[in-house]
Amino acid sequence: MTKQSKKERKPRVVIVGGGFGGVAAAKKLKKTDVEVILIDRRNYHLFQPLLYQVATAALNPSDIAAPIRKIFRNQKNLRSVLGAVERVDLSQKKVYVKGQPMRYDYLVLAAGATHSYFGNDQWSEHAPGLKTLDDATEIRRRFLLAFEAAEVETDPQAREACLTFVVVGGGPTGCEMAGAMAEVARSIPDDFRQVDTKTARVILIQSGDRILKSFPDESSDDAYDQLKELGVEIMLRNRVTEVRADGVMCGEDFIAANNVFWAAGVKASPIGESLGVELDRSGRVIVEPDLSVPAYPKVFVIGDQASAKSAKTGEPVPGVAQGAIQGGEYVGNIIRHELEDDTWVERGEFSYFDKGNLATIGRNKAVADIRGFKLKGFPAWFIWVAVHVLFLVNFRSKVSVIFSWAWTYIFGSRGARLITGKSDYEVKCPPKDE
Amino acid sequence: MTKQSKKERKPRVVIVGGGFGGVAAAKKLKKTDVEVILIDRRNYHLFQPLLYQVATAALNPSDIAAPIRKIFRNQKNLRSVLGAVERVDLSQKKVYVKGQPMRYDYLVLAAGATHSYFGNDQWSEHAPGLKTLDDATEIRRRFLLAFEAAEVETDPQAREACLTFVVVGGGPTGCEMAGAMAEVARSIPDDFRQVDTKTARVILIQSGDRILKSFPDESSDDAYDQLKELGVEIMLRNRVTEVRADGVMCGEDFIAANNVFWAAGVKASPIGESLGVELDRSGRVIVEPDLSVPAYPKVFVIGDQASAKSAKTGEPVPGVAQGAIQGGEYVGNIIRHELEDDTWVERGEFSYFDKGNLATIGRNKAVADIRGFKLKGFPAWFIWVAVHVLFLVNFRSKVSVIFSWAWTYIFGSRGARLITGKSDYEVKCPPKDE
Repeated sequence: MTKQSKKERKPRVVIVGGGFGGVAAAKKLKKTDVEVILIDRRNYHLFQPLLYQVATAALNPSDIAAPIRKIFRNQKNLRSVLGAVERVDLSQKKVYVKGQPMRYDYLVLAAGATHSYFGNDQWSEHAPGLKTLDDATEIRRRFLLAFEAAEVETDPQAREACLTFVVVGGGPTGCEMAGAMAEVARSIPDDFRQVDTKTARVILIQSGDRILKSFPDESSDDAYDQLKELGVEIMLRNRVTEVRADGVMCGEDFIAANNVFWAAGVKASPIGESLGVELDRSGRVIVEPDLSVPAYPKVFVIGDQASAKSAKTGEPVPGVAQGAIQGGEYVGNIIRHELEDDTWVERGEFSYFDKGNLATIGRNKAVADIRGFKLKGFPAWFIWVAVHVLFLVNFRSKVSVIFSWAWTYIFGSRGARLITGKSDYEVKCPPKDE
Repeated sequence: MTKQSKKERKPRVVIVGGGFGGVAAAKKLKKTDVEVILIDRRNYHLFQPLLYQVATAALNPSDIAAPIRKIFRNQKNLRSVLGAVERVDLSQKKVYVKGQPMRYDYLVLAAGATHSYFGNDQWSEHAPGLKTLDDATEIRRRFLLAFEAAEVETDPQAREACLTFVVVGGGPTGCEMAGAMAEVARSIPDDFRQVDTKTARVILIQSGDRILKSFPDESSDDAYDQLKELGVEIMLRNRVTEVRADGVMCGEDFIAANNVFWAAGVKASPIGESLGVELDRSGRVIVEPDLSVPAYPKVFVIGDQASAKSAKTGEPVPGVAQGAIQGGEYVGNIIRHELEDDTWVERGEFSYFDKGNLATIGRNKAVADIRGFKLKGFPAWFIWVAVHVLFLVNFRSKVSVIFSWAWTYIFGSRGARLITGKSDYEVKCPPKDE
């Protein structure tokens, strides 16, 4: 390319994914003379760590989502495109959206992950996972409908199955969802006449020998105790071998439950497969120490889509918001320097800075592990609230979230108890004429 | 029935529909020794007059909806059933839910209305109407996707069609929706790079010779002027003769528009058909002066499902929230008196008290007709806001709505700009490689 033609068009950075990683990378390029194109299948950036609160009717979808266009309203070098990237052609330097090619000079892949049923995709019908807003409202629908179905069910056994909630997976999402569901069931008995919602069972199934494996042992134990306090039944060292419409099989045992939720496994976005480079078992792209794709220094993969190691510790970068944000900032800085500063050559290696780990279980119930400093109960919960509110991208959401939480905290009732979409439910014995 | 068996079971009042009418009737029975069963297809009471604000991304679904169970948490004689009533058997005194009979002593039908395409139900696919929360999020999805599609459209004509919004029907819903859409288009140009959203056309088509026919002439003119100020094109004396995927036919004229919204006609819930009594053209049950079904004094029909005349004026009771609420209270009182007071015999006749008519068009733009006293602009708008906030059933929603409105008012930006559900859009020319 001659200097002449270089002047005619600006270098283009294509970022795939408007999650934590993609947004962080894009923001670093705000003042660079470059064309940034941010492509996402959704028109909003989602604050995923709070998704389970939408699924359990504490928050509204719009509380945890901000329109991407609004986030970048003032970043004039950024163009937002709503669409799904189907594949990447590394040799041609093009991504394909709706069958149409779009060239790039730099590419940042930050398309995230979805849930994995470990090869049993047929389970998804009976055990929805939690990755998108639509997932969350679907889980909310099923969760709230369960109480409605129980209210009109006359057979005691069937009623029990209506009110049995199985959460598969004892990571942060599973623990948070199980805790919140137990809390909801405890807070609404006065709304029902036939059933006692406090008799609802919430069962958390974890394959390993402790929950919250990414936390220190002590925090796992604290979380265990706090979940127990809320009445959650925790089954450790158990693996779900089958999910059916009427319950789950755990080895030889059958648990009758009309409501199963999946929080067990993730797999990376399938876009990575089109690269033709090495992937790990979860479909993540195995990246270089500078987060680039081997042999393609101008293509980066960050966040949940990447299998990366932190240079300092040699440990894998965890699939959490901070991992994506730090990766996005690191990559954004590299691109900015390479485009702005002809003398800058040293990329260095990416190191993940672990700010700490937080998981909330319920009102006043949480665990925190902040650089070895462990907290539980109210202090951990308070830090959790503060950190999450601070992180929300969109100021408006923040105020609204504080309000919702304060309300739930003081009055114990939830504001978003709406069943949207199909409101039909399966009951074997519908309302009888008494 | 002997006195003995009467003692064994309480009289049962079945109320079909948890809208304004059904809720008002149920509340009147709070202290009566009776079994009240409230049946609704949804688990929430919807504040329908604000539905267009969800459709235009100003409010969240949960801002205008309150769980029915929560409303009646403290009314212990009321049981809430989630389900669709399929038919009524007047002679057997039974309603059927999911094929199962449920007996009643008193029946209140308050199942409302849905939109009517005047026999052209195939139009619904291309011109969704606005009656439920799911309708509102679907309209919001289409409305917001239109700008996304325009942003990546390269053909100027196709782009214009993306940004042409046709609203069919010049009643309150049509006017409010058209005004809000014009306002949104004006407020978001900075979010887009390729299109100027201010060039969006909003076209309001009205068959009559003025909009807001239920208002006095003067208010219609005021509303007309205020909509014009917002840039809405109003076509009076025009009737849509065909709705297609690519636009609408108005007699001989074709308007190319990818987005058509229906606010033209209503028809009553089909439950009325199963009664075997006289219905009017819109499927409403023609009721006695005491709102009962002819020959069935213990079966009442109220709200949008009834064709009733106000005793005092002889005028039809309008299909507005107040009509339903007053009908519900009137009927609830009759039932209460007949069950509590053996000496009370006089039902009297229902009279509608017209508290006034309000319609809002945009920020600081509205019309009001309060018992002959006409207002427009800011004063009308202010009354509209005050009245609507006061009426919201659920205290929490109120605060949240005030907050959302204040935010929109001050900053002009909307908080609920989320595309949920399918985010795919039709573009003839997808993003090209430039």
